[in-house]
Amino acid sequence: MAADPSALFRTIDLTRVRAGGASRAHDLAATEEPLEVRLHGEPFSVIMRTPGHDRELAAGFLLAEQVIQRASDVRSIAHRRDLAGDLDTNVVNVMFSDSHAAELPRLLEGRRQTSTASSCGLCGRRSIESLALDVPPLASTWTIRAVTVARLPEELRRAQTAFDETGGLHAAGVFSPGGERLDASEDVGRHTAVDKIVGRALMAGTLPLSACVLMVSGRASFEIVQKAHIAGLPIVAAVSAPSTLAIELADRAGITLIGFVRGDSFNVYTHSARVLI
Amino acid sequence: MAADPSALFRTIDLTRVRAGGASRAHDLAATEEPLEVRLHGEPFSVIMRTPGHDRELAAGFLLAEQVIQRASDVRSIAHRRDLAGDLDTNVVNVMFSDSHAAELPRLLEGRRQTSTASSCGLCGRRSIESLALDVPPLASTWTIRAVTVARLPEELRRAQTAFDETGGLHAAGVFSPGGERLDASEDVGRHTAVDKIVGRALMAGTLPLSACVLMVSGRASFEIVQKAHIAGLPIVAAVSAPSTLAIELADRAGITLIGFVRGDSFNVYTHSARVLI
Repeated sequence: MAADPSALFRTIDLTRVRAGGASRAHDLAATEEPLEVRLHGEPFSVIMRTPGHDRELAAGFLLAEQVIQRASDVRSIAHRRDLAGDLDTNVVNVMFSDSHAAELPRLLEGRRQTSTASSCGLCGRRSIESLALDVPPLASTWTIRAVTVARLPEELRRAQTAFDETGGLHAAGVFSPGGERLDASEDVGRHTAVDKIVGRALMAGTLPLSACVLMVSGRASFEIVQKAHIAGLPIVAAVSAPSTLAIELADRAGITLIGFVRGDSFNVYTHSARVLI
Repeated sequence: MAADPSALFRTIDLTRVRAGGASRAHDLAATEEPLEVRLHGEPFSVIMRTPGHDRELAAGFLLAEQVIQRASDVRSIAHRRDLAGDLDTNVVNVMFSDSHAAELPRLLEGRRQTSTASSCGLCGRRSIESLALDVPPLASTWTIRAVTVARLPEELRRAQTAFDETGGLHAAGVFSPGGERLDASEDVGRHTAVDKIVGRALMAGTLPLSACVLMVSGRASFEIVQKAHIAGLPIVAAVSAPSTLAIELADRAGITLIGFVRGDSFNVYTHSARVLI
């Protein structure tokens, strides 16, 4: 467990909607921040993670990626110090042992020749600077009624043919301001479920989806909000919790982020003016 | 929704353990398969997904990655045909329109210069062939009692300081054959939670973890089983469902894969001889 559990979550402000009434409240959200992994000072990869045990994370990640094979391949793993000598807790630098350092050019070159991405919106980023938090905010001003938001999970679930069968599929759907389901998708991955919907809209010529709500099963991470922004979706609702970075991006991106939509209650984390109580 | 819902899940064999008794059974598991996305015939990326709507997925993925900006950037997206003319349903080829094709060299070169990875075990792979399903199987022969397996979720939960606070963190833990918790980790990501544990073991010199069980909150995907294999963990248990590819990899990797550990019951999908009923 983390030596400092407070790093695991942060207090956030939100609007709590319960049975038609709204109140301002505080809650805790799981901390999500990017960790930049450098090899011998060179940016190598960015991993979204909850801060804490970053050296262990870097070691385990490099082992999983087969960049290292054993503990003796590593001489040191340490957070970067900036020019003023302060620790940069979101950057770790990995130094190989002498015997493994000879592998470095081959490894870096091999990575360079590997054009690659999963559907997480992070691949292709090797430095934190390349993560786009400074995005043009969405400006839609239409509103959705609280009772409509509360109905979305049930409407999404009705579109799911397989979840009940396997318990293993995520779902994503787009809805009209009135709560009508316009499209839905199921996938083992949350990101890919959203990609399928946005891709279908792209091919149908209906982007941006500025008059739609995105509803996802599960949690709302940074990448889900990022994909919503690219598709022009001004409202994102999730059945479960958002991360701190999802909230931060939604705030900057002009997106109304809603979480814990259950029964007749939910939380609005950002841009709550789009929700009519 | 998929035109062919049967692609969303597959029937799998398992050993069902209920209240101390075991029986062979069938169930459905969510289909997980790699999709290779090619640009003008050149392997570009591999995405784990549930088959279906692959053209839409490729379009949405390339938009999210900002490889394309609009529908008119794309001339065609189609599944590959092999030399015999048969469709290869796990490979889609994307052809850019003439106006966007000029971007291709720059895009491919840009990707090549971006050494990249998230912690999903997939980044760095641009062709399906590079996914290692042919792995040396783990050979550990020790066993774990069914009652011990059933107790793992509660033991893992006790190590979680933050989940109850936020509802937004995944957990992973390693346990002895007797069910003693040896280490645990919490993170917004399931993959990163596992990386932290494996990385700590690497740095402590305790790899391979051949006498340990890995328990994860949530689902068991391909990448979780892949990371377990690299760490030498012969038993993987999950609170929720495994995917088809997780089961397939566990089978080949000699890993006992257990899912739906709830109350006094769970399912064993592969190598059930390690579980003592």
